Parts: sequence; structure tokens; C-alpha cells
Amino acid sequence: MKHIYIIGVGLIGGSFARDMREQFPKATLVGIDTNAGHIEQALALGLIDSQGDLDQLTTADLVALAVPVDTAVSLLPTVLDKVGENTIVIDMGSTKAAICAGVATHPNRRNFLACHPIAGTEFSGPSAALTGLYKGKTQIVCEVEKTAFKLQERALALFKNMGMRLRYMDPESHDKHIAYMSHLSHISAFMLGKTVIEKEKNERDIFDMAGSGFASTVRLAKSNPVTWTSIFAQNKENILETLDEYIDNLQHFKSLMAQDNFEDVYKEMENTNHIKSILNGLEQ
Amino acid sequence: MKHIYIIGVGLIGGSFARDMREQFPKATLVGIDTNAGHIEQALALGLIDSQGDLDQLTTADLVALAVPVDTAVSLLPTVLDKVGENTIVIDMGSTKAAICAGVATHPNRRNFLACHPIAGTEFSGPSAALTGLYKGKTQIVCEVEKTAFKLQERALALFKNMGMRLRYMDPESHDKHIAYMSHLSHISAFMLGKTVIEKEKNERDIFDMAGSGFASTVRLAKSNPVTWTSIFAQNKENILETLDEYIDNLQHFKSLMAQDNFEDVYKEMENTNHIKSILNGLEQ
Repeated sequence: MKHIYIIGVGLIGGSFARDMREQFPKATLVGIDTNAGHIEQALALGLIDSQGDLDQLTTADLVALAVPVDTAVSLLPTVLDKVGENTIVIDMGSTKAAICAGVATHPNRRNFLACHPIAGTEFSGPSAALTGLYKGKTQIVCEVEKTAFKLQERALALFKNMGMRLRYMDPESHDKHIAYMSHLSHISAFMLGKTVIEKEKNERDIFDMAGSGFASTVRLAKSNPVTWTSIFAQNKENILETLDEYIDNLQHFKSLMAQDNFEDVYKEMENTNHIKSILNGLEQ
Repeated sequence: MKHIYIIGVGLIGGSFARDMREQFPKATLVGIDTNAGHIEQALALGLIDSQGDLDQLTTADLVALAVPVDTAVSLLPTVLDKVGENTIVIDMGSTKAAICAGVATHPNRRNFLACHPIAGTEFSGPSAALTGLYKGKTQIVCEVEKTAFKLQERALALFKNMGMRLRYMDPESHDKHIAYMSHLSHISAFMLGKTVIEKEKNERDIFDMAGSGFASTVRLAKSNPVTWTSIFAQNKENILETLDEYIDNLQHFKSLMAQDNFEDVYKEMENTNHIKSILNGLEQ
């Protein structure tokens, strides 16, 4: 592995760059980003060695696409136009169906592996990049059979060396399940934050009464709106379904409370308590 | 401080006991709990020195009531019936109006200080008790003027030595604001957990796709249903109001998505992003 290109040097791409630096100390890491400030920061932080452009991709061994998912859909065909025979391109987007559909008939489809690393923080930009962000995390790989065997092997070995757990899934199932497991959490946190901010104009008071429980539940409301707007747009239908179910559940809970049916309020919580065992070991 | 009584030796009372042990190493810590298993555990863990009963409270220097808020309302008058002239009783409940109202005309009202330490974890029982749980946390004190000056002084000094920040508030304001800052977070987390569990019957799949974001947002769904049912019942009116606003905000967000108005979806998130600065320093 000599030439590694990172397109999008924010939290996700920058953290990936840090892992590549560790795994391939002799490789050259080249950054591509439309945000000149991010390139500057990524160079200063040593995430990348130089700035590059798409026309150089023909010599790339590995290209990691870590951009908002709308940009991924529009940019990926161009990236595949420019890669060499032996280049593996991975994306790292939180949606998979539109990205896979956009290159389904591309002549270089075999050079692409569709991925979603389930990792991140609520922060963004190159300065948020962390070494080891992906260690112990799940890498969801879609349509693995459409990637050239030699190239998929290279990418999967790299993920394993990063300490990731591999899971294979079709893009539609990925988008459906991830709407529940990730996208809904973001909306629930953003709307919780909105509800509280609207009510509590005096921020000093909010701060004083906020405990670690509120901080944890609202944490994702700090997330980058650019990243998330494009995810919500691409996974719209699945997310609308999760929102319907979530709102129904909230309304049911509200009506139990309004009817003073606290026996069933108790049951609602007790039945959900077994999320404990589901999430064992996942806490950070 | 020679005789300290802890009524309810779970997470909250047990953690308080640990702090008292540190602050008053020569004091005797006596536990009272209707759960015999909890008394046994608290003795084994060294949280308390012995089991006591309410009739001994006349000799108590300090009584900490750390029971579900419905029990607090029913038990506090009896506790105040039994205390000595020089006993300070504090409660640690997440609601304040009903507890304060229940003893408003009690002849020993002056022996009681209404408190709500904004601290806790999603775990419960004596084994969940932590040393230093209250350090750096906010202690909300209600109706301080109704407590005998000498006794309030003793309690407040003790809180300061625990490293707590004191905030004074009337019980109605407390209950109104805490509905937003804490109670709503719990319902939002419980219903998020319910929505995901209902959808994802195969728990192994959930686990594989769950990231730290979901874990953080749903964390409070592990909380004790007994504790929270009584809080929801006591703060019903305020919570119903927060739920209405939260559901309205979710429905508005959903309709923006359904209309493909992603410009406003972006604005919703951007406007809420400044929760970052509000919560600075609160993350654990």
C-alpha cells in the first residue's frame, strides 16, 4: 500500500487516515477536500502528507470517500471514472442504497466496496479525528460480491487489522435497520434539545438543572447538520416510518399518563428495561 | 454528627452514605429499608453499620430520605413525627411540590430541608452506590426559609463539603423545569428503546448495528421503573406539557422531511446545535 487517498478529511476520514498511518507507516497519505481550511488543518495535524486532486487517483492503491452522503452519491461515479485497475475505493457513508444504486452499472463497479463503519462522535472536522476510533466497532459491508475478489480481500484485511468486526448486509436492509439504530436517535436528540431550548430561555438555569442523564440523551444534538441533512434526505422513507412509530409510542405513553394508568406506565418501562442486556458492552 | 440514618439504601441513599462515611468517619450509619435484601447488601458493602427502625429517629442527627417519591410523600410525615428537636431530615427526591405540600403544616416542618441532588446513574440498588457521585453536582434546595436556621446551616455545610453546588428554588418551579431537564429525557429514551426493540426482534442484529450514539441516547431506558413511575405520577401535569411540545416538534420535523423541505430540516438542527455551549463541561 503506497498511495492512500482520503476524500473528506473530517472526523470520519481523518480518523481513518490516523489508522492508515499506523498500519502503513511508509505509505503517502493524500487528502482531497473542497474545504481549504480542513486541508490546512489536516496537514498541520499530520493526518495527510499532501493535498491531491481527483486526477491522481489512477495511481491510488486505496481511496476512502468520507463525505456527506449526498456528495458521495454525486462524486463516486467520477471517482470510479478516474481510478486505476488496482485501486480499491471504499465509502464510509451512513446510508447505502442510493450510493450503491448510483454506481450499479458503472464499468468500474468492481473497484468499489460499499461500507458503513458504525463509529463516530458528535464532533466534526479534522481536529475531531481520533486514532483508534474504529477499533472494536462494526464495519457493515454491502454488496461484497460486486467487488473484485482481490480488491475486497485487501479492504477486508485492512478493516480486520483496524480491529473492526465485519457484517455483511444488502443496502436496503442496511438503510432500514440503521434508521432505527442510528438515524432515529439523532432526531430524538435534536428534538429533545429543541424542546428544552425553546422552553428555557435562560441558559444558565438549564445548565444548573441538567444532569448527566440529559447530557447523554441530548448528546447527538451537537452533531453536524450538513452531515445529517443529507442522511435524512437519502433515507427519508425509512426514517419517516421510524418517526411514525416513535411518535405513536410517545402518544400512547402520554395517554396512559393522562388516564392515570400508572400500572401500564410501569409496564412500558419494565418491558423496555431489557435494553440493558442488549446493549451490554456497548457503553462508552 | 454521631447518628446518621439513611432511609432507602439504594443508588442514591447508598452513595450518600459513602460520602457521609468519608465526611464523618466516627459517626454510626444506620440503614432503614423495607427491602431486606438491600439491607443485607448495604451491610456487606459497608454502606451502613447496622439496620435501624423509625422509632430510633429521635436520637438522629441527620436523616436522609432516599426512597421513591410516592413513598417519600407518605413516609415523611411519620419520619417528622419521630425526630428529635435537633434532627435535620433531608429528602433526595426528583419531585418537590407534593413532598413539600405533604408536610407544609407539620409541627416539625422546621426539621425538614427539601432537596434534589441532580445526580445518579441508570443503575439501582446498594451495589450501584458510588463514592463521590455528588461531587461537582447541583443540589437544588426548596423552601429553605421553612427550615430551622441552625439545621439548614448544618445540612448546607455538609453539601458544600460533598463538593455540591447549591441552588435555591421554589418547589413548583423545580417541578416545572425538571420535567424538561430530566423527566422528558427519560421518557424519550424509554420510547426510543421501545420503538427499536419492537422493530428488531433479532437482538443480535440490534447489537451489531448499535453504535455509541444509540447507546448514549437510549441509556436512561435502563432506569428503574419503580423510581420513575412514581416521579411521572407526581409530576404528571408538567410532564404532559413537555410531552406535547416534544411530540409537536417531532411531528413538525417529520412533516418537513415528508415535504422534502431539507433546508428547514437543516435549520432545525443548526438552531439546536448551540446546545453544545449550554452543555459544555457537563459531559461525563
